[in-house]
Amino acid sequence: MKGYVHVYTGNGKGKTTASMGLMVRALGHGLKVYMGQFMKGQRYGELDTLEKLGVLVERFGTKNCIISPEHVTDLDLVKAREGYKKVEEILLSKKYDLVVLDEICVSTYFNLITVDEILHLMKIKPKETELVLTGRYAPKEVIESADLVTEMKEIKHYYNCGVMARDGIER
Amino acid sequence: MKGYVHVYTGNGKGKTTASMGLMVRALGHGLKVYMGQFMKGQRYGELDTLEKLGVLVERFGTKNCIISPEHVTDLDLVKAREGYKKVEEILLSKKYDLVVLDEICVSTYFNLITVDEILHLMKIKPKETELVLTGRYAPKEVIESADLVTEMKEIKHYYNCGVMARDGIER
Repeated sequence: MKGYVHVYTGNGKGKTTASMGLMVRALGHGLKVYMGQFMKGQRYGELDTLEKLGVLVERFGTKNCIISPEHVTDLDLVKAREGYKKVEEILLSKKYDLVVLDEICVSTYFNLITVDEILHLMKIKPKETELVLTGRYAPKEVIESADLVTEMKEIKHYYNCGVMARDGIER
Repeated sequence: MKGYVHVYTGNGKGKTTASMGLMVRALGHGLKVYMGQFMKGQRYGELDTLEKLGVLVERFGTKNCIISPEHVTDLDLVKAREGYKKVEEILLSKKYDLVVLDEICVSTYFNLITVDEILHLMKIKPKETELVLTGRYAPKEVIESADLVTEMKEIKHYYNCGVMARDGIER
């Protein structure tokens, strides 16, 4: 069965959570799931649940909350480099049925990952693996090459950028 | 802590999965979670995972795939009525921290649930409970009363209405 490439982008809520829902679905069918999270360093409660379910979760961010390209530190860059190498290995290993690369789209906006690198990951994806890419500002070349693209559009929101994020709901 | 009302609507992929991701997050923090699914009767693999995690899942649909209001049968109506009564009880019981009412928005489009009924459920929601409403065609009154609204906008999709839905990915 051919695996597709999904993109969840846009400024609205629901991109990472949609990918987590896909994981729940895949796990219900006994599939093997991997999630690599770019730009996230803090430990969120959701990871306990995912790990309990057998998802391998790896994180390639720092505790730094990046809100513009000028906020990027050397450590953020090192972590993103490590992450890219790691997810490349994961895809080449052909061990996973569903691979989620959380926040990889927005990582291009912050110059942590290049567009060509994402296109390379899409290209080396094993034929049957489902690949999910999340994050704002998905580059147009990524959208063009993907099979399924959803824009999460913010209609209403009560807070911005992690301020007031509540345990159990936003993290 | 105040609980908010989220709406995930629009024609794109990711509405139900976003609500499942919120459940994973809430469960990671030890919260109690309920999901009532309108218009869904088939048993999907994801339910095994959610039930294993301790989510109470109830379904108020039939096996009928409703694609227009003319496709609604008496049984669909009876099931939706039962569902409405049930989720009203669930909210009044104050037992759950997160209550997801999947596909309740599109249920208004098919005349299975009225807009006033959704507004009533939003009104009786316990102050601290997080309420998540999903489905296309969210009525404008519901959007106006909600705290967080995301429109999932389809940019690209390779199939429609359940045809070719693949186990582990779409169900």
